[in-house]
Amino acid sequence: MNSDIRALLEGIQQGTVTVDEALLQLKQQPFEDIGYAKVDMHRKLRQGAGEVIYGAGKTAQQIIGILTAMASHGQKNVLITRLDDEKAAEVKAVHPITYYPEARIGILGQMEPPHGMGTIVVATGGTSDVPVAEEAALTAQFLGNEVLRLYDVGVAGIHRLLSHSAELMSASVIIAIAGMEGALASVIGGLVDCPVIAVPTSVGYGAAFGGIAALLSMLNSCASGTAVVNIDNGFGAGYMASTINHMEAKH
Amino acid sequence: MNSDIRALLEGIQQGTVTVDEALLQLKQQPFEDIGYAKVDMHRKLRQGAGEVIYGAGKTAQQIIGILTAMASHGQKNVLITRLDDEKAAEVKAVHPITYYPEARIGILGQMEPPHGMGTIVVATGGTSDVPVAEEAALTAQFLGNEVLRLYDVGVAGIHRLLSHSAELMSASVIIAIAGMEGALASVIGGLVDCPVIAVPTSVGYGAAFGGIAALLSMLNSCASGTAVVNIDNGFGAGYMASTINHMEAKH
Amino acid sequence: MNSDIRALLEGIQQGTVTVDEALLQLKQQPFEDIGYAKVDMHRKLRQGAGEVIYGAGKTAQQIIGILTAMASHGQKNVLITRLDDEKAAEVKAVHPITYYPEARIGILGQMEPPHGMGTIVVATGGTSDVPVAEEAALTAQFLGNEVLRLYDVGVAGIHRLLSHSAELMSASVIIAIAGMEGALASVIGGLVDCPVIAVPTSVGYGAAFGGIAALLSMLNSCASGTAVVNIDNGFGAGYMASTINHMEAKH
Amino acid sequence: MNSDIRALLEGIQQGTVTVDEALLQLKQQPFEDIGYAKVDMHRKLRQGAGEVIYGAGKTAQQIIGILTAMASHGQKNVLITRLDDEKAAEVKAVHPITYYPEARIGILGQMEPPHGMGTIVVATGGTSDVPVAEEAALTAQFLGNEVLRLYDVGVAGIHRLLSHSAELMSASVIIAIAGMEGALASVIGGLVDCPVIAVPTSVGYGAAFGGIAALLSMLNSCASGTAVVNIDNGFGAGYMASTINHMEAKH
Amino acid sequence: MNSDIRALLEGIQQGTVTVDEALLQLKQQPFEDIGYAKVDMHRKLRQGAGEVIYGAGKTAQQIIGILTAMASHGQKNVLITRLDDEKAAEVKAVHPITYYPEARIGILGQMEPPHGMGTIVVATGGTSDVPVAEEAALTAQFLGNEVLRLYDVGVAGIHRLLSHSAELMSASVIIAIAGMEGALASVIGGLVDCPVIAVPTSVGYGAAFGGIAALLSMLNSCASGTAVVNIDNGFGAGYMASTINHMEAKH
Amino acid sequence: MNSDIRALLEGIQQGTVTVDEALLQLKQQPFEDIGYAKVDMHRKLRQGAGEVIYGAGKTAQQIIGILTAMASHGQKNVLITRLDDEKAAEVKAVHPITYYPEARIGILGQMEPPHGMGTIVVATGGTSDVPVAEEAALTAQFLGNEVLRLYDVGVAGIHRLLSHSAELMSASVIIAIAGMEGALASVIGGLVDCPVIAVPTSVGYGAAFGGIAALLSMLNSCASGTAVVNIDNGFGAGYMASTINHMEAKH
Amino acid sequence: MNSDIRALLEGIQQGTVTVDEALLQLKQQPFEDIGYAKVDMHRKLRQGAGEVIYGAGKTAQQIIGILTAMASHGQKNVLITRLDDEKAAEVKAVHPITYYPEARIGILGQMEPPHGMGTIVVATGGTSDVPVAEEAALTAQFLGNEVLRLYDVGVAGIHRLLSHSAELMSASVIIAIAGMEGALASVIGGLVDCPVIAVPTSVGYGAAFGGIAALLSMLNSCASGTAVVNIDNGFGAGYMASTINHMEAKH
Amino acid sequence: MNSDIRALLEGIQQGTVTVDEALLQLKQQPFEDIGYAKVDMHRKLRQGAGEVIYGAGKTAQQIIGILTAMASHGQKNVLITRLDDEKAAEVKAVHPITYYPEARIGILGQMEPPHGMGTIVVATGGTSDVPVAEEAALTAQFLGNEVLRLYDVGVAGIHRLLSHSAELMSASVIIAIAGMEGALASVIGGLVDCPVIAVPTSVGYGAAFGGIAALLSMLNSCASGTAVVNIDNGFGAGYMASTINHMEAKH
Repeated sequence: MNSDIRALLEGIQQGTVTVDEALLQLKQQPFEDIGYAKVDMHRKLRQGAGEVIYGAGKTAQQIIGILTAMASHGQKNVLITRLDDEKAAEVKAVHPITYYPEARIGILGQMEPPHGMGTIVVATGGTSDVPVAEEAALTAQFLGNEVLRLYDVGVAGIHRLLSHSAELMSASVIIAIAGMEGALASVIGGLVDCPVIAVPTSVGYGAAFGGIAALLSMLNSCASGTAVVNIDNGFGAGYMASTINHMEAKH
Repeated sequence: MNSDIRALLEGIQQGTVTVDEALLQLKQQPFEDIGYAKVDMHRKLRQGAGEVIYGAGKTAQQIIGILTAMASHGQKNVLITRLDDEKAAEVKAVHPITYYPEARIGILGQMEPPHGMGTIVVATGGTSDVPVAEEAALTAQFLGNEVLRLYDVGVAGIHRLLSHSAELMSASVIIAIAGMEGALASVIGGLVDCPVIAVPTSVGYGAAFGGIAALLSMLNSCASGTAVVNIDNGFGAGYMASTINHMEAKH
Repeated sequence: MNSDIRALLEGIQQGTVTVDEALLQLKQQPFEDIGYAKVDMHRKLRQGAGEVIYGAGKTAQQIIGILTAMASHGQKNVLITRLDDEKAAEVKAVHPITYYPEARIGILGQMEPPHGMGTIVVATGGTSDVPVAEEAALTAQFLGNEVLRLYDVGVAGIHRLLSHSAELMSASVIIAIAGMEGALASVIGGLVDCPVIAVPTSVGYGAAFGGIAALLSMLNSCASGTAVVNIDNGFGAGYMASTINHMEAKH
Repeated sequence: MNSDIRALLEGIQQGTVTVDEALLQLKQQPFEDIGYAKVDMHRKLRQGAGEVIYGAGKTAQQIIGILTAMASHGQKNVLITRLDDEKAAEVKAVHPITYYPEARIGILGQMEPPHGMGTIVVATGGTSDVPVAEEAALTAQFLGNEVLRLYDVGVAGIHRLLSHSAELMSASVIIAIAGMEGALASVIGGLVDCPVIAVPTSVGYGAAFGGIAALLSMLNSCASGTAVVNIDNGFGAGYMASTINHMEAKH
Repeated sequence: MNSDIRALLEGIQQGTVTVDEALLQLKQQPFEDIGYAKVDMHRKLRQGAGEVIYGAGKTAQQIIGILTAMASHGQKNVLITRLDDEKAAEVKAVHPITYYPEARIGILGQMEPPHGMGTIVVATGGTSDVPVAEEAALTAQFLGNEVLRLYDVGVAGIHRLLSHSAELMSASVIIAIAGMEGALASVIGGLVDCPVIAVPTSVGYGAAFGGIAALLSMLNSCASGTAVVNIDNGFGAGYMASTINHMEAKH
Repeated sequence: MNSDIRALLEGIQQGTVTVDEALLQLKQQPFEDIGYAKVDMHRKLRQGAGEVIYGAGKTAQQIIGILTAMASHGQKNVLITRLDDEKAAEVKAVHPITYYPEARIGILGQMEPPHGMGTIVVATGGTSDVPVAEEAALTAQFLGNEVLRLYDVGVAGIHRLLSHSAELMSASVIIAIAGMEGALASVIGGLVDCPVIAVPTSVGYGAAFGGIAALLSMLNSCASGTAVVNIDNGFGAGYMASTINHMEAKH
Repeated sequence: MNSDIRALLEGIQQGTVTVDEALLQLKQQPFEDIGYAKVDMHRKLRQGAGEVIYGAGKTAQQIIGILTAMASHGQKNVLITRLDDEKAAEVKAVHPITYYPEARIGILGQMEPPHGMGTIVVATGGTSDVPVAEEAALTAQFLGNEVLRLYDVGVAGIHRLLSHSAELMSASVIIAIAGMEGALASVIGGLVDCPVIAVPTSVGYGAAFGGIAALLSMLNSCASGTAVVNIDNGFGAGYMASTINHMEAKH
Repeated sequence: MNSDIRALLEGIQQGTVTVDEALLQLKQQPFEDIGYAKVDMHRKLRQGAGEVIYGAGKTAQQIIGILTAMASHGQKNVLITRLDDEKAAEVKAVHPITYYPEARIGILGQMEPPHGMGTIVVATGGTSDVPVAEEAALTAQFLGNEVLRLYDVGVAGIHRLLSHSAELMSASVIIAIAGMEGALASVIGGLVDCPVIAVPTSVGYGAAFGGIAALLSMLNSCASGTAVVNIDNGFGAGYMASTINHMEAKH
């Protein structure tokens, strides 16, 4: 934001903008207010990422409204997360999104072609973790990353994981997704030297407590080089992995 | 207890005991009441195990009193758990116990020579888990088991564990002890086909929550053939493992 | 796994396998990858147990796919847990499973004839615990164990439990299943000298907290020789009990 | 309080008290304000019990001040709970209290002679529960009850408890005190038909969570006729039991 | 139970029963085993109360089966708790129960005429607590108690409660039922000198946490003479209150 | 209440009311008892606010009954919270309420014209917090306050919030509503010098734990001048803000 | 901050400040960086309050350093909270603070003379809550408020509270401080029509859980016009109350 | 590990190693077993990092033993975390470590010269977070990173943070460290486009719950590109940041 402020200040100094215009601009420019939402129009510039709508707490009409506002500002590629089947259908009737039901993701426009530092591996402990994994994988693909999926490689059958050590070791970033005891992140973290993003899932029952067991397990991982996102937060993991995978582009 | 009741009933029927004698016997025989404790005198017969004193909530004087009562009934071998240094010194002044400070265990008399089905492996994730492991190992030895210690084989360096697969696979029972994320039990459970007793420890900080993270992790283990005891309960794991390891003696 | 590696290494030394073949074999042999799952084909050999599918997080189509992959490798007997009525019907249309609705278990093929060390007793505190108990009992039967059911023998009417002391005392392993205050495991644990597997259930309301009260109660049991599995984990208890009951077969 | 209000109102009506006097009386009479405490002077009349000081959050000087204020109003018998050794010594230097270190109770004056409906039985699961039990027992004795102590009768050795069934069954009220899994209350509750007051204790470690396990266990007791007080609240249990035991005196 | 054992023992001594008959009798007499339940037939004698079925975890068919077994042993009056509308209709088709939908209680046979020491007051903090209150009130009435209902007298409008001080002060036992902050029990406990049974309810939202806030509040009540039952456990409170209210009948 | 008591006492003194009349008046006047509820008729006078019905735990019939009782006492303006669509329709058939579905609020009669000290700003972190915000805003408007809504100004895009600093700084009271990490209250609290009422919402998933994350965050706010209400308690925040905003009217 | 920005912008426009100077000013002006702390120098202007140092996580040397930095900017009156005896002595050796040991508060300079809208009442449930109450009271006095202390007026003896209704009803703001069950806030909230700030304290034991019971109780208060601060946060309550009490000064 | 296995396999094929030698090598090479620990000697190669000893659960003698074992394998640079003053002194007497008391870190040998992609910014919310921040900063420096410290820039004074936006925006990775409400991570995450590692600290009191409030807040951050490590885990954050900052070295 600093550079924006500087530009504005210089405009004032040079007489090209008045003080009131500047104040106005500070207030109106970066987003459009559509009542129930302030739609961010410059986030791509400011944060280096395409636009994302968190679909969970919004009605289909609200999502459509936000998409419309974005479209009017030229935003062509939008990722909508936590979008259930019904809302997806409603949105699709207005905006031409592609819908991925397992990941509950809708995508308007195109995925960016891969341009990161390397491959992001998305690994899961079991089959039940796949929906969260798909959310992570599609998010990373949308943001321009090569993605390799390794599903059902949980630690209770360690040979399944070890047989993929070559893929793990050549990854740029690894997203380790597991519910129940969430040990996958620790075992992978002990094998590789790239950053590992751990995603606990709400898979399991009883003392899994909706993902708390896996979350605590991952936070306490004795493997260095691991950090954790919220339970079931495939999007956050995919986004974080992409940010890491695109670091060199920054300099 | 059934056989005791039957014996008593038959005594009444045969006229060798009166009804009042029988009732009296039911009340007095199995333990001695020393006020603050009811000292069990027949537990070895009834449960097939040597006598154990849980030292945590008792004063040194109370422990001495219980040992004295046991001695007067001919109990020669007693295991005292959770015995801190000071109490141990006080007890030692009266009863000739051997004290193991790391395990906080005192033993009166002898350990039984090994006579179980096989070897009990006691494995830990890290160095900090060793005190709990020693409590488990000494308990198992006291109860007549061969014990093999494998310490600091945590999953973040999986090769350390895998290099011991031979010992793990030939074990009769395995006690897997770990704090932090507690993944050791799952990984071991996935490698072997013998019963695994998992012991979470209070090792760690922050979101380890005094062992809760490891406890939940172990309860949610996706490896079959695993069961869990209380946090830091080395004694319970050693006892359970011994019970399993002595099964064939029963028939 | 050690012996597999040794065999492979010797093959290389003897020139019967090349290095690349060996690496390939390490990667492909132990399971078949069907995308959403890595189907374990050698677990019976490695772990001494029949194959099991955890049905909870899988669609009927995924379960069918796994069964088909197993069938193509000659696996005839498969246990499917947490299988609800609807999925069971879908699966049944393709694979001839027997479905047990109360236990939510489907079984493909045969139960193994009993060949363990003795009888496994499955005891419950109340009528509401029966579904979990049936999951445990059927699992144990599937794995080749004699099972005796003692239902509704909770501690609030201790005479109901004591009247079965003969059965309890002659058991090889006991599975104690209870919700609410979960005291059953402690009382049984104090009566017998065989291993006791405690299963907390989510039966109850209010401060039962979905089984937490029973879980904590069982973890804190003052009876030695007791270990605990996850809330409602009848399968885990049955599997663990079977593992213990088959120990002598190992030597 | 209703009768006090009526008396006051009638006094106004009869002209014996003015309105301002009445308001003043309402404000000043029932307690004396000594700054850090409002010392209740009429509680014995209003609630039918001797005076009690909860010692935990108060300094020795504050306790002495309250005792002095009570003495100046003629209160001769006072029970002070949660009084540690040091404070007890300080208080004793001013007021002639009798101090019970195990129960951390100080008593000024006399215990009332027993005059309740029957005997209150105080039972504990183990030796470590005795301090809480003594707090309960002494409270009940102070309030005029016959008390029978049954210590170390935990459910893991059910014969110890059953051998006392005669005493249990003839009790007027039973206080069941236990830590760890807290099953004592349920088993006793299933044997008797008198009210049972359950007291969880903070005895135990790990998943005992400072008494939470026992608390939840007791709240979920499947035995009817049981109610629970706070963890380690021996005083509350003794008071409640006394209230119940003195019911007939009310009519 | 002691007296039963003595009777049996004397029978053996006198030759009227054989040892095997005695053992058989010990096993079969006190309940009937109908597979999914052990129906207690002598509980009225042993515990001084009519029979109760906890309906929550049972199917309508199971409840009918238990009622039939009871009927065949002459039990005429049965209380069924946690009975929802559908099950009630199914049961009613076989056994002539009276159903109270708000309290979710079904009663077979008659309520006992009041014969306790005095009146049980059932007070609630709000209107939403009424279903739990009705469970408590009907239970107490079924067990032979006079009941007075005081609903919606929560502490946020303290005058509503104070206006009923006469009824509160003349009660034999008070059941204080409240959700949210659960302060009702403390305020009532400070006004009266009879036993108070506190029932937290799951009424509320957010940080009410399904009744935990009220439960903790009641456990920490600074008013003496109060004990607590499980969240929403109207039955338990009614039963406990009845036990207390019938104490004099015992002597 | 003091002034009522004084008036009553003076009436007695002057002979205009008898003692029994006074006692009767104390009991009957302030509310009407309609069985399931004690309808407060004088709360407006006593607390300075219009009447409110908490609709959550009440049936439509109960709400109608309370409204009818209020109407018969001349209460014209009533706010009903937590009123779902179905109940609203039932109520509307009898009493002419205006229903706001997003806020789940029904209003009988008129909103009071604004007469407070200034404007109440209602700010939310996201779009999903709007229903709670509307509950707060409508409550404040009902109670006679000017309200300004600032929705979707969460801290992850701090410029959206900063662009509204003028409105924030001229507010009389600010209600900061946010789920997830709940940081909005701290950031606003650091910018302004008026009281801030923080409302955590149950928006979010996983480790949001139904609003606990936001609740804890807000309770730990390092910004002074902030206090917190229950999760999703828009009504409580609106009421508290109105109380603050009307302070000068008191003197 | 808006007005600062505007002033700066106008300065640029008028040529009195350059762009780089403005940016520099934005960065350096509002605080002084002394390494471990950024000492706020303009908070009084920006937030309308004197300066406060939270002493808990700081060493005596750090506190001294901050005071010195403040002094060099002309700040004469500073409140230091959570200052223990030892640190207070060290600080006093350098800066002439007045230390209040019970409240753990140090004050440099003067308290402001009272200039708010009315009196702030600080009420506690018991004697043990007094330290938190003194923190609140001294904070409010430091910030220029008249304070009235009402200590030990807990709800278990409701007459003690009611006898002070006159003081409660004439308060401008009330701070209700209580541990254990925390009911004080609800009862006060039901009596008065001014804002009530509730402060849970960590007083109590067992299920008080270090103040959680009181915290939840207060968050769920059914009395409107109440908001809550963190456990033991006397400072926060005093600050919030002062902010409310000084509202009229703003317009 | 794959490449090691391949090398070993090729050795066997070429006849340079025998099968038994290979198995031996697999077991002995990667670590040295010194009883209480398996000292990893090749981790630098395998994971790309210097060696680290977690000092918390180890005695000074154990740490010395591990350092000695490392030294004998040529490891010159070792980082010891969670090393308190006393242990540091004992270790220093044998191995020439440099000790950083605030960070509780000891370093044997040299810090690596910076060679990462850019600067790692370490920011804290307050002064009390500095010890954790120093652990993070020193870890990152030890592993060869340029580090910039920004301490006491918490969100309650947002201008302190905003004044550093230039440094934040030019960072390669940011470590955001905060206790209490932990909002720092979200606000920073919303300003920058580089990866943010959030570290909750146990700073605070009451409902901070030893860091849980900050942990939950950070897990629920609505700012994308953020991941979290354990409470107070400065080391983990520094290590993760270094791993990210050295990514380009990998290709």
